[in-house]
Amino acid sequence: MLALVLEGAPRIDPRRAEPERKPDEALVSVRVAGVCDTDLQLARGYMGFRGVPGHEFVGEVRDADDPSWVGARVVADINAGCGACEDCVHRGGHHCETRTVLGILGRSGAFAERLTIPTRCLVRVPDAVVDDVAVFAEPLAAALHVLDEAEATCAARAVVLGDGKLAQLIGRALAGAGLSTTMVGHHPAKLDLARRAGIDTTLEADLAARHRGADLVVEATGSERGLARALELVRPRGTVVLKTTVASPITVDLAPVVIHEIRLVGSRCGDMKRAIVTLASGRVDPLPLIAARYPLIEAAEALEHAGRKGTMKVLIDVLDRAQ
Amino acid sequence: MLALVLEGAPRIDPRRAEPERKPDEALVSVRVAGVCDTDLQLARGYMGFRGVPGHEFVGEVRDADDPSWVGARVVADINAGCGACEDCVHRGGHHCETRTVLGILGRSGAFAERLTIPTRCLVRVPDAVVDDVAVFAEPLAAALHVLDEAEATCAARAVVLGDGKLAQLIGRALAGAGLSTTMVGHHPAKLDLARRAGIDTTLEADLAARHRGADLVVEATGSERGLARALELVRPRGTVVLKTTVASPITVDLAPVVIHEIRLVGSRCGDMKRAIVTLASGRVDPLPLIAARYPLIEAAEALEHAGRKGTMKVLIDVLDRAQ
Repeated sequence: MLALVLEGAPRIDPRRAEPERKPDEALVSVRVAGVCDTDLQLARGYMGFRGVPGHEFVGEVRDADDPSWVGARVVADINAGCGACEDCVHRGGHHCETRTVLGILGRSGAFAERLTIPTRCLVRVPDAVVDDVAVFAEPLAAALHVLDEAEATCAARAVVLGDGKLAQLIGRALAGAGLSTTMVGHHPAKLDLARRAGIDTTLEADLAARHRGADLVVEATGSERGLARALELVRPRGTVVLKTTVASPITVDLAPVVIHEIRLVGSRCGDMKRAIVTLASGRVDPLPLIAARYPLIEAAEALEHAGRKGTMKVLIDVLDRAQ
Repeated sequence: MLALVLEGAPRIDPRRAEPERKPDEALVSVRVAGVCDTDLQLARGYMGFRGVPGHEFVGEVRDADDPSWVGARVVADINAGCGACEDCVHRGGHHCETRTVLGILGRSGAFAERLTIPTRCLVRVPDAVVDDVAVFAEPLAAALHVLDEAEATCAARAVVLGDGKLAQLIGRALAGAGLSTTMVGHHPAKLDLARRAGIDTTLEADLAARHRGADLVVEATGSERGLARALELVRPRGTVVLKTTVASPITVDLAPVVIHEIRLVGSRCGDMKRAIVTLASGRVDPLPLIAARYPLIEAAEALEHAGRKGTMKVLIDVLDRAQ
């Protein structure tokens, strides 16, 4: 099959071996995939990943033990846990020690014509949610997961630090859940994009006293300064959600965390069912975030484009769109 | 009155002005006070505090608007909030922006014959709780507050990093609440003290694989290495409670916080009523933690003693014990 492969620089392999479907797994034809910053990091050697990357996708089930899945349009939880350990049984398996993660850890990913994933990871996509919307389910699930970490009531005041792809989805997720949300960034054009989705925005340079005392601050800049800024803006006993990793150790004064009894919570993958329900409701419209699209044969160019500063979501059309 | 005063080096003032009782405040005769590391930090210039320090005490009410308080043996919440702001109304007032804090911020403290504190801060001490036990209510409240920050079920496995005064109380608080608790320290004698209270202990050098994966890790060492160690020991989606401040910014790799979705929570003062109920129940016995006691006239020596490496709780007898 046709696939993008990471073994050194990203390259197209027109004759990549098909993934083998194990019992309890589904074979899925990918329709559309999305490029995430994690893919770019993998391409730079993160986690020593070799193989087919890609974990944001919508596809169609070609084969599964349970025939009722065959033909279904689906997205999937990318974390394929063992299903038996304490983390899988009690906490959803996103931290199962023997898990594979689609296109990230031990499992061939979505920048290919076909992939396999445990059937229990599948989530059906309603007809009303078109492919270009459904492909946002995985990053939107991660964005919505922020709501699990905070006392996120409608009265809450939230600040999102960052104006990139993920920050845009987080802003939409929080505003869609009724939180009074302000997005803080450096790029007027990106903040415009958020404003058109009904989110308050401010340039970081224009932060003022009224932005302090937030119940929830989401750090989604990935910059070393982000955490210190978040600690300035959150109220005592408020929550700071760390959504992006900074590659190297950072130097930070954590005394305010103790003095103001702040909660600092790391947040990663979320619930795919909730993401699909949210997309189906129309509360979050991801379509304005699509910056470009490439056919699978040009997936290396898609990654290169996604890596250009300021680029929003780049999609990869895997299903021949003429079909 | 007789008082210890911080204005430069700690010194005894035999003619310190009496604190003036305002409406809604109680005038309290201090019976016994305890020396906390915060007092030692204030003596070194922390927070620019000048005046009478001391916030761990048990005393007797001498005067109050409500005569039913007069004669009552009491402890008190040291945070005297305004009573009207959002933090006071909804979150207990420990982070009220205009609060005073007994012996720490804008309010004369307990290393003196008398103090004043809002009557609403008072908690009655049952007869069964003797002075030397009741004086531990404030630090025990802070220790028990750790339970508020974690999913602290009886099935939980907790690790306390540190074997000092506060760590000893935290270990007892968690074990008393039914958590499987291990205290990690550097000092065999201090760990013995914890072991005699029924707490599992280990030298930090002897930490092994079985100590990893804890549901809750409490950082109570105050050392720069503590947080990194805590992040090694906590399970994915577990909680790290930061109980002590490190004076200067630290360099730390927070990527594990995001990857493992760890909660990092700062924790300070707790609920004094719960502390008194816990002490009355006998679930926590603080008496073995008393290292020395000094009369108020020797309070400067008490602070000096408390500052010696490895010293547990030093008490100050304010009430003439011959009475």
